[in-house]
Amino acid sequence: MAGNIFGDSLRLVTFGESHGPAVGGILEGFPAGVNIDMQAIYRMMQRRRPGTSSLVSSRAEKDEISFYSGIENGMSTGAPIAFWVYNNDKRPVDYSNLKDVFRPGHADFTYWQKYGAQAGSGGGRASARETLARVAGGALAAQLLLLRGIHIAAYIHRINDISCPASWMEESIEKIEQCHDSELPCPDHEVSMRMKKIIEAASENGDSLGGSIVCVINGLPPGLGEPVFDKLPALLAHAQMSIQATRYFSWGRGWESTHLSGSQNNDAFTSDGGKISTSSNHAAGSLGGISNGMPVFFEVGFKPVSSIAGKQKTVNKTGTPVEIEINGRHDPCVLPRAVPIVEAMASMVLADLLLRNQTATFTGSH
Amino acid sequence: MAGNIFGDSLRLVTFGESHGPAVGGILEGFPAGVNIDMQAIYRMMQRRRPGTSSLVSSRAEKDEISFYSGIENGMSTGAPIAFWVYNNDKRPVDYSNLKDVFRPGHADFTYWQKYGAQAGSGGGRASARETLARVAGGALAAQLLLLRGIHIAAYIHRINDISCPASWMEESIEKIEQCHDSELPCPDHEVSMRMKKIIEAASENGDSLGGSIVCVINGLPPGLGEPVFDKLPALLAHAQMSIQATRYFSWGRGWESTHLSGSQNNDAFTSDGGKISTSSNHAAGSLGGISNGMPVFFEVGFKPVSSIAGKQKTVNKTGTPVEIEINGRHDPCVLPRAVPIVEAMASMVLADLLLRNQTATFTGSH
Amino acid sequence: MAGNIFGDSLRLVTFGESHGPAVGGILEGFPAGVNIDMQAIYRMMQRRRPGTSSLVSSRAEKDEISFYSGIENGMSTGAPIAFWVYNNDKRPVDYSNLKDVFRPGHADFTYWQKYGAQAGSGGGRASARETLARVAGGALAAQLLLLRGIHIAAYIHRINDISCPASWMEESIEKIEQCHDSELPCPDHEVSMRMKKIIEAASENGDSLGGSIVCVINGLPPGLGEPVFDKLPALLAHAQMSIQATRYFSWGRGWESTHLSGSQNNDAFTSDGGKISTSSNHAAGSLGGISNGMPVFFEVGFKPVSSIAGKQKTVNKTGTPVEIEINGRHDPCVLPRAVPIVEAMASMVLADLLLRNQTATFTGSH
Amino acid sequence: MAGNIFGDSLRLVTFGESHGPAVGGILEGFPAGVNIDMQAIYRMMQRRRPGTSSLVSSRAEKDEISFYSGIENGMSTGAPIAFWVYNNDKRPVDYSNLKDVFRPGHADFTYWQKYGAQAGSGGGRASARETLARVAGGALAAQLLLLRGIHIAAYIHRINDISCPASWMEESIEKIEQCHDSELPCPDHEVSMRMKKIIEAASENGDSLGGSIVCVINGLPPGLGEPVFDKLPALLAHAQMSIQATRYFSWGRGWESTHLSGSQNNDAFTSDGGKISTSSNHAAGSLGGISNGMPVFFEVGFKPVSSIAGKQKTVNKTGTPVEIEINGRHDPCVLPRAVPIVEAMASMVLADLLLRNQTATFTGSH
Repeated sequence: MAGNIFGDSLRLVTFGESHGPAVGGILEGFPAGVNIDMQAIYRMMQRRRPGTSSLVSSRAEKDEISFYSGIENGMSTGAPIAFWVYNNDKRPVDYSNLKDVFRPGHADFTYWQKYGAQAGSGGGRASARETLARVAGGALAAQLLLLRGIHIAAYIHRINDISCPASWMEESIEKIEQCHDSELPCPDHEVSMRMKKIIEAASENGDSLGGSIVCVINGLPPGLGEPVFDKLPALLAHAQMSIQATRYFSWGRGWESTHLSGSQNNDAFTSDGGKISTSSNHAAGSLGGISNGMPVFFEVGFKPVSSIAGKQKTVNKTGTPVEIEINGRHDPCVLPRAVPIVEAMASMVLADLLLRNQTATFTGSH
Repeated sequence: MAGNIFGDSLRLVTFGESHGPAVGGILEGFPAGVNIDMQAIYRMMQRRRPGTSSLVSSRAEKDEISFYSGIENGMSTGAPIAFWVYNNDKRPVDYSNLKDVFRPGHADFTYWQKYGAQAGSGGGRASARETLARVAGGALAAQLLLLRGIHIAAYIHRINDISCPASWMEESIEKIEQCHDSELPCPDHEVSMRMKKIIEAASENGDSLGGSIVCVINGLPPGLGEPVFDKLPALLAHAQMSIQATRYFSWGRGWESTHLSGSQNNDAFTSDGGKISTSSNHAAGSLGGISNGMPVFFEVGFKPVSSIAGKQKTVNKTGTPVEIEINGRHDPCVLPRAVPIVEAMASMVLADLLLRNQTATFTGSH
Repeated sequence: MAGNIFGDSLRLVTFGESHGPAVGGILEGFPAGVNIDMQAIYRMMQRRRPGTSSLVSSRAEKDEISFYSGIENGMSTGAPIAFWVYNNDKRPVDYSNLKDVFRPGHADFTYWQKYGAQAGSGGGRASARETLARVAGGALAAQLLLLRGIHIAAYIHRINDISCPASWMEESIEKIEQCHDSELPCPDHEVSMRMKKIIEAASENGDSLGGSIVCVINGLPPGLGEPVFDKLPALLAHAQMSIQATRYFSWGRGWESTHLSGSQNNDAFTSDGGKISTSSNHAAGSLGGISNGMPVFFEVGFKPVSSIAGKQKTVNKTGTPVEIEINGRHDPCVLPRAVPIVEAMASMVLADLLLRNQTATFTGSH
Repeated sequence: MAGNIFGDSLRLVTFGESHGPAVGGILEGFPAGVNIDMQAIYRMMQRRRPGTSSLVSSRAEKDEISFYSGIENGMSTGAPIAFWVYNNDKRPVDYSNLKDVFRPGHADFTYWQKYGAQAGSGGGRASARETLARVAGGALAAQLLLLRGIHIAAYIHRINDISCPASWMEESIEKIEQCHDSELPCPDHEVSMRMKKIIEAASENGDSLGGSIVCVINGLPPGLGEPVFDKLPALLAHAQMSIQATRYFSWGRGWESTHLSGSQNNDAFTSDGGKISTSSNHAAGSLGGISNGMPVFFEVGFKPVSSIAGKQKTVNKTGTPVEIEINGRHDPCVLPRAVPIVEAMASMVLADLLLRNQTATFTGSH
């Protein structure tokens, strides 16, 4: 069993290689009767698109996605929604000199080991170009969430050792979203300027940087998450750690909370006019793996991109040492384009859990 | 769709509430022909058992598990393997005063929201007693892995702010396993003494502590992990974050690697007599989500246990503020007993991926 | 991936061998808040139990099932429901002479081929004793269906060449159910007397007979069934053909309808006070694989039981020809005990589809 | 959870509506290293294509399928294989007069009930045009089977009351395949002439006919089929009954075998030079739901097509009685084009079971 299908009630299947004819996917299980805001999908796709600034890959892809089924007159019909983009700016020739060598940090070696000599290059399917379909699927899922008042926004929390103040993790979605159209989507303007500088410096050196993205979810009703294996943080961890280059998933202020004592970390329940909530939010919106109605936030760490400009030592398929230089067009830092990908995967998880929760209880009225 | 089934080719289903008659599970998809080392299973169960030291809950459970199907004459038959333990030392009376109130940090509130008034107490299914079945299933899975020379060992890396030297993450399994029979399974003896002291101090104060566990996997062949959603780190993150009280999942030295540049973080490929490996292991054994043959290690963070001894403020189901004191028998620190649970969930993931990988390629010989 | 889990939103896992210590299962995904009528479950179990008449196996099993989780105070909690029965009247000694030979018509040979020499006897897991867990799971599922007014009843339609009038297929559930407590559950008394006689005659000759069971479903609301692969008839066919000894699945009057022309077979839509139905029911309640609100009925064919008393020619594992006589206790005709099994599998399918249908549409009210 | 994904280890996802822009699918889990014979795929597609004779719909579709991923240099890479066809000869105008009425025998009414007013017409997704993707997926699956010497061929066994001699069910694949290029793929020439005549007569009367297709599988090794729910006949029944217009699934000579006694029906095991087989084949190649190495054959019944030319009585969405005449282009008999669809679904099941069987046993050699 391969791993190209994500979700249970709502399932996203993706296909396509970076330098093949097309990339796309099918979203299966999307309920009928949802008005689809196409402009919102295009906006989210645009945020992931390469070639939009000096901070990201110069590959010239318009990524104008089309939908081929499951939507009629702007409304979902309950049938599978298929979508794809034809790859325009393929340059397989950039990779011809790499055919038999293993790029450090890349999946060439492991794809070859797994699928045998006949496997396409790891870059084909392992490339982040595949995430185009995740964003399209996640953008559809997000529209389901909006019908329940659930809002998701991510931002760059850290590039290398330059971080946003942690207080942004508990800021409102509205404020966070204001940074989404900037080339470096970090809500703290001063910090974002410093981040931009170190990315540009790395880029000039032919090097790359990592960092972390924080994702905030507001409006989540209590009750989402499925005991015992499909807890809310477990599914979100799965989703996020399936994104290329991720290195850690941290719930709430994960690191900090593991340094507290129980008496410091427990959130006291309070009641305000019958509505029960907690006076603090160390739990980051989840108790026992089920949402409790408080805001959710988590952090995802990304390693520095493996494609760097300088000469690198490696070996080829026969084990002979060789030196390579990787041409192609690459992101010096994956984080600016990864922000909508993190949101998309979070949207997939939450929409799936929302649907799965429809069967948690069952009552007798016909 | 509920979430009590874990895995794809190898599937673990668990059942049972902490204070119900029994807890157990079914392991489905376990291949025929594997000799089952029952003593190894009992030893792993013993490491998770409560009542074994002053550092853990005093609940008196022998946890002597029996297997009811799928094994004949000490060998797996290919049929589902069912196992369970009857709960001996139930004390529901300890919880009778908590029936209508929400314990801070516990799942009472979210289970009530999700399943309605008729739901059993969150403690029932949300309790870590459920992990007994994970350890039994994982201990079986580990025997499949041993047939391929794959070894897994976890240990306590940190309690609150007292940590092991990071070098232990890349130590041999044999050295790590030596700590498994101690009441505080941390391989650095001096550090473990200090950890023990702060847990005992917290316990005396009626408080609790968190920390982190590191898990090391040796002998993993290249090729395990399923693009694109079921990458090796993604499935391990899902598995680990489904364990009670977890707060973060970090691949390799995740935090550190996100602070490196690409040129620092890339591992150069080398060849030794035809065997290709890497000269460093920043990737912690995974490239593109597929194992590359190098050792795997990851860290899992745990929050401090929510059950603490002092008075706490909360509300009841009608929203009325109340003060509670939680009696019952609880662990001041979950980590000593969580070490085999982390191993068990890692074993489930790897055995599943090993089976899934049987169909990555297909050749023509009848 | 093995095949011991049935269903999607509602999943039944079964375990246990005919002559092992226990047989049982786990029902996962059963919603919270359903009152469980234990007496109804016991009654359904009783109808499948051996030893109740001269027409069925004399194996003395009380089959008093217990439930170990997921139900508190008579109500489902949303947690997995585990149940099992210890095998009392095992007689493995009856099979000791069959250890190395392949019983004609049995699964000994194919289990050996599939699982290798170490496999338990095919009789272990392939035995219809496994269906005990199907009936327990199906009896629970039926209680969900009753909350929506969905009623299911099956009966013996034919033994060898003695059939009930076809008009019974469209009779009311109430009338059909009246035969459920008789030793030969066929609603036409005169026919059932003749059926009984030929079964007894076959039994005296050490032989066995087959036939067919018809299952009727009333009260099914329109909309159940999932395009395109999980159509209502497709899932019911899967479910029924997974029962031991089944040979055909026929929707409605399947054979007849394939001999009609389109103009004869189409059911005209009519409307009565706004309620749309059809004036005939050749479609047997399904259009395009989705229920249309009309009664559903289908027929399941069963081969004659393979365990017969006389001497039979076969070979052993080395391929040497041998003659065998099968002792043990066997049903001369599987159909009397199969009636509740057919109902149980239908209940599993319909309850699953009822839950899956909760997400067919989605609307905007928070 | 919707139902557009079929299979476990090998999964086919289909999308597209009859009069939407495109129909296609993704085949996920297809192993790497399989040479793809594109001509074989095109030939199978051609057999399903409309417009090829007076016996089938005149819709002018070339159905020239393209593959967009997962195949490089004619070999599978292990990545998902996506394929689609753009619909050329759409004529939604033919259906505009049917927008608010329910065609008898069609899925318009049930789709409306299930998905609400916003659902696309049932004809969209319920149309047999969707089976184009099944044939493409099945044709790929068949190439996996060929690597193990497994051959599948179906043929028209019966049109209305004109049947082939039953002996063809146990005939060789080679002989059966010879009829595949004729407009009425029935291997008995004289019978096929009579079948053709009654179809033409029905067509002239604006009526339609049903019948049955037999599918034969040779070369299946012992061991395929997964106890207890995913038995070989159960999965094949599911697959076949998910095809539009199917009415029954019969294993081997199902009807006959349920009229035999056990002593007549049991197949004696024999041995020839160490190879164990049975001297007769009443079991049609399956014991206990697992293949035994003997030829498999089964029969699938189809109702007469619902789209007929004459005036029909029905109601519209408000329940008002109306008379309709269905224009559009329809098959007077679905069976000629259904032959490759039956083969395709059988191929999907067998290739999936072949992959699933890779994990039935596990041995210790690294």
